Amino acid sequence: MTQMIQPSDTAALGPLPCFDDVKAAAARLQGLAVRTPLIESPALNDVVGGRVLMKAETLQRTGSFKFRGAFNRISQITEQDRAGGVVAYSSGNHAQGVAAAAALLGLPAVIVMPSDAPAIKVDNTRGYGAEVVFYDRYKESREEIGSAIAAERKATLVRPYDDPGVIAGQGTCGLEIFEDASARRVTLDSLLVCCGGGGLTAGCALALEALSPDTRLFAVEPEGYDDTRLSFEAGHPVPHGKAAPSICDALLSPMPGNITFAVNQSRVSGGLAVTDAEVKAAMRYAFRTLKLVVEPGGAVCLAAVLAGKIDVADRVTGITLSGGNVDAELYRAVLAEEG
Amino acid sequence: MTQMIQPSDTAALGPLPCFDDVKAAAARLQGLAVRTPLIESPALNDVVGGRVLMKAETLQRTGSFKFRGAFNRISQITEQDRAGGVVAYSSGNHAQGVAAAAALLGLPAVIVMPSDAPAIKVDNTRGYGAEVVFYDRYKESREEIGSAIAAERKATLVRPYDDPGVIAGQGTCGLEIFEDASARRVTLDSLLVCCGGGGLTAGCALALEALSPDTRLFAVEPEGYDDTRLSFEAGHPVPHGKAAPSICDALLSPMPGNITFAVNQSRVSGGLAVTDAEVKAAMRYAFRTLKLVVEPGGAVCLAAVLAGKIDVADRVTGITLSGGNVDAELYRAVLAEEG
Repeated sequence: MTQMIQPSDTAALGPLPCFDDVKAAAARLQGLAVRTPLIESPALNDVVGGRVLMKAETLQRTGSFKFRGAFNRISQITEQDRAGGVVAYSSGNHAQGVAAAAALLGLPAVIVMPSDAPAIKVDNTRGYGAEVVFYDRYKESREEIGSAIAAERKATLVRPYDDPGVIAGQGTCGLEIFEDASARRVTLDSLLVCCGGGGLTAGCALALEALSPDTRLFAVEPEGYDDTRLSFEAGHPVPHGKAAPSICDALLSPMPGNITFAVNQSRVSGGLAVTDAEVKAAMRYAFRTLKLVVEPGGAVCLAAVLAGKIDVADRVTGITLSGGNVDAELYRAVLAEEG
Repeated sequence: MTQMIQPSDTAALGPLPCFDDVKAAAARLQGLAVRTPLIESPALNDVVGGRVLMKAETLQRTGSFKFRGAFNRISQITEQDRAGGVVAYSSGNHAQGVAAAAALLGLPAVIVMPSDAPAIKVDNTRGYGAEVVFYDRYKESREEIGSAIAAERKATLVRPYDDPGVIAGQGTCGLEIFEDASARRVTLDSLLVCCGGGGLTAGCALALEALSPDTRLFAVEPEGYDDTRLSFEAGHPVPHGKAAPSICDALLSPMPGNITFAVNQSRVSGGLAVTDAEVKAAMRYAFRTLKLVVEPGGAVCLAAVLAGKIDVADRVTGITLSGGNVDAELYRAVLAEEG
């Protein structure tokens, strides 16, 4: 059972990541992570009556932002620990990020994945040379399996979000958003971030605090899986309630991390939640108008904007399109739902 | 019947467009055309063993590069001719480009489209406020219908490619490619351009000649519709032979334009042709790995690279992804073909 951390207990977490860690991560990722474009669509702007700047992490190495955090973390493993390699648990995007980063750095990788993970994510993870171990999402604990493998192989466990090195790496996504907005002489009124365990949100929060403190930050989650929003209300990390299955496989973590929550609590203005139907409509909009392939979990911020969950009229809003790893079968089904 | 123009007859065409026209077009399009990103995928680079820089005109206003040429041409219509509006014939992408440009400039637009044009292109053209007139692709002449409407309404005919203003506008795509490559301190060994009537190719040729004269330029066409390649061999514009239907609806023009041919003949190194099967495989690759929605005609250069029609190993190759306007039904069918 995860120990509940009260706000006053953050000292127990060790040093929290800061913006200097994000800058150091950017230097490590230089030339390895794709500097993804901040895309603007005149058609989308017309529809919402404001400007929407989209950070297309769908175009990142491995098809999601996860490579950033994984590489930043793994590149800091000490020489003596490298031989044991790395182990990670993930529904898929962190898996691919860890597998690709480990391959680039020459470390062996074992990835613990749910047996119902999208085939494209499993195939790609293996394609990067990692060993995949499956577990039953509903019966087994991926944390326990991951820890057991780590102990047995003397491997370094690379957590999907609750790790300062991972958070700092994801923060480079936010760093680029604010740098590119600044280059266009634009200040974002709001930034919406796709939120599972809160790693990308926390990284972006650090960049925002340093580079664009007047921008309001929102964590966007699938309805029923809005544990980050609930945790803000509770004042400490709490799990989401029992929820119906969601199409957003990348955002189904049970509760915020202790570190991500500690970073986010004081920096995030609020949480937004979107339904599966809104997510599917956003995926279709991205296909039809934006010409971008976005996976369900990567489309929640676009869904929030299109569904009017936040007022973007006459404002400048940044959103993350955090990943594009969606199976062709599901994608075809989502496209077919349109009348 | 179009008059065959021999190379020595180019004086009959009037002044050909030049690079200064491209620069003037760039100034007119500033802030209106999207400066689309030049995307690089580590995964694609690994597959081909070289660097591939992709100009994502799929992300352009109206979903293809055609807005560039249409806006540049229409913005130069004289004050006295504006009231008559514009008329254009197009299978769809030029239609949308003209409709959107005319709407921005406040001119009425009539678009002559084949009755079997993709629904997404018809819907979008109407969405920009244009009037659509259908014709039978196999029985009627779109040129005659367009000319008749132009005469009747005193409208300006905006040709899809054989017009100096249109060519100069498309050239801004090439201008950006070479500017962005230069900013990355990269010289392209080759640039591959999606080729129908040759307008984008000609525009890119003008930019290439001025900015990157050591780069070799290739026009890529659907197999059976390689009239540009055949015309280079013949030394004057010739039509393609009778061909089976192609999935590449955007690239089925019968022969090069007289102006586009005159520009391209001395500047293009050669032509490449790809099959529908190669195009579909490229569309699936773009979905699965690049996370980009690319229409058939926009995927021919990617198809040429993936199918090994040109040696890109250890080289830097630029390619255009010229449009993304594909119906969901066709897209689903293409994705489903994969085993």
